[in-house]
Amino acid sequence: MCELLGMNCNTPTDICFSFTGFRKRGGETGVHADGWGIAFFEGKGVRLFLDPKPSAQSPIAELVRNYPIHSLNVIAHIRKATQGHVSLENTHPFVRELWGQYWVFAHNGNLPQFQPELFGGFVPVGNTDSERIFCWFLQNLRIRFNDNPPTRDVLFATLHELTTFLAGMGIFNYLLSNGECLFVHCSTELCFLIRQSPFSLAHLKDEDVSVNFSDVTTPNDRVAIIATMPLTDNEPWQAMTPGTFWMFYEGEPVAQLTTIPSPVKSLDEMCRKPD
Amino acid sequence: MCELLGMNCNTPTDICFSFTGFRKRGGETGVHADGWGIAFFEGKGVRLFLDPKPSAQSPIAELVRNYPIHSLNVIAHIRKATQGHVSLENTHPFVRELWGQYWVFAHNGNLPQFQPELFGGFVPVGNTDSERIFCWFLQNLRIRFNDNPPTRDVLFATLHELTTFLAGMGIFNYLLSNGECLFVHCSTELCFLIRQSPFSLAHLKDEDVSVNFSDVTTPNDRVAIIATMPLTDNEPWQAMTPGTFWMFYEGEPVAQLTTIPSPVKSLDEMCRKPD
Repeated sequence: MCELLGMNCNTPTDICFSFTGFRKRGGETGVHADGWGIAFFEGKGVRLFLDPKPSAQSPIAELVRNYPIHSLNVIAHIRKATQGHVSLENTHPFVRELWGQYWVFAHNGNLPQFQPELFGGFVPVGNTDSERIFCWFLQNLRIRFNDNPPTRDVLFATLHELTTFLAGMGIFNYLLSNGECLFVHCSTELCFLIRQSPFSLAHLKDEDVSVNFSDVTTPNDRVAIIATMPLTDNEPWQAMTPGTFWMFYEGEPVAQLTTIPSPVKSLDEMCRKPD
Repeated sequence: MCELLGMNCNTPTDICFSFTGFRKRGGETGVHADGWGIAFFEGKGVRLFLDPKPSAQSPIAELVRNYPIHSLNVIAHIRKATQGHVSLENTHPFVRELWGQYWVFAHNGNLPQFQPELFGGFVPVGNTDSERIFCWFLQNLRIRFNDNPPTRDVLFATLHELTTFLAGMGIFNYLLSNGECLFVHCSTELCFLIRQSPFSLAHLKDEDVSVNFSDVTTPNDRVAIIATMPLTDNEPWQAMTPGTFWMFYEGEPVAQLTTIPSPVKSLDEMCRKPD
């Protein structure tokens, strides 16, 4: 299995503190030593750092830890390979473009029997179930909405439908962002934390490092951090209920639905190739 | 204008030496201070480093200079903005997926009047002519060959046709790779160098740094370096003739054609939307 880390903010924020603890789990305080990656949205662009080496020893992770990149949406992943060999093309997060927006996806879980028909618009480069799911998501969005991206709420409803369809097939925790919202599915294990005024001192679990967020924020800042397991030991992390799908926007959860697994439709019914 | 750097090899090679000189031109020995980027193919994956800051001062460029990433195909770019503001989404190289392969593109030039119809499969995220050209290239390839990637030679012929169509519209030096070949169009200014046995000492133009390649190579290694201007002052760089299109494979040029600008077809004739 893997671990996920996401951030969604109302003002561009760096993730150096959280990443400092998270990266330790990639081969030092955790066993997730089969590569890591992190994607930062900056404006419409994405900066993606990938390394098939363990994050605890990676010089690129050391750079990311020390180089404050200010972003509204960040997705990071440390990998313990289940499907797909250890290689750069199988390293999360994955990035694709749809509707002139970059989309970023990272997955913790295993859906081995999910073998959808992909029609050529989005084709996996590697051989993970995760990239296959991501391509299928984007293919569905493209076919359903053609060239017209839907509103945030319609997007949430659509992704909820797709996620519910897959939720019965296996473990399927994921983070997905188009740079505006962060979509989160808790299949088995995820938690989150909102940092907002009044800010206080936070202390990492994986390394003896503290930050007093009142020194580095303004009163209007709001930041949501989503992680497989809490990253700090003195903040009120909230466990997400398994089988819930969330939309985070401007640093807080703005929508939530349950994902009761019920593949009442067939895969063909979910996504038909256009004539 | 901008500067380009490409590498195509028969064995995975790092580009630390060439990049050491190249990055200096991004704000120190050259004026290209509006961002930089470099993409490394590793297996089927791509590692992309982008920074809208000048490469001469970028901590990410410092990392790339010191961290040997072994790759068969590399494309790098330092930017002096002509079209599009200075931002991450306008920073070259651009990456997209087609046929389950990543494609990487960087451009030096200006084709302001090129406004093709894009049908939605590949849409620019930023607002440069360069990303528009790249999307149009991939759209053409997808429409012509559907889900069946052509052979290397057919790909070369097709890209030659597309390039010739655009060559009369403005300055259009570019590097394009699918991880196997490096396609190079010299519109006004590019040169290349083949490093192979017997290897010798190379000395950078932009910084007093030398490498004796005989110490770090095996006799079978072959590396092609392509750059806007020579990077070393003691090696036999060959200027490319303006109006030539090249395919590099396994460290050497394997095909070359002239690109006499002749847009005899209309844009609609070049690329029709499928029914």
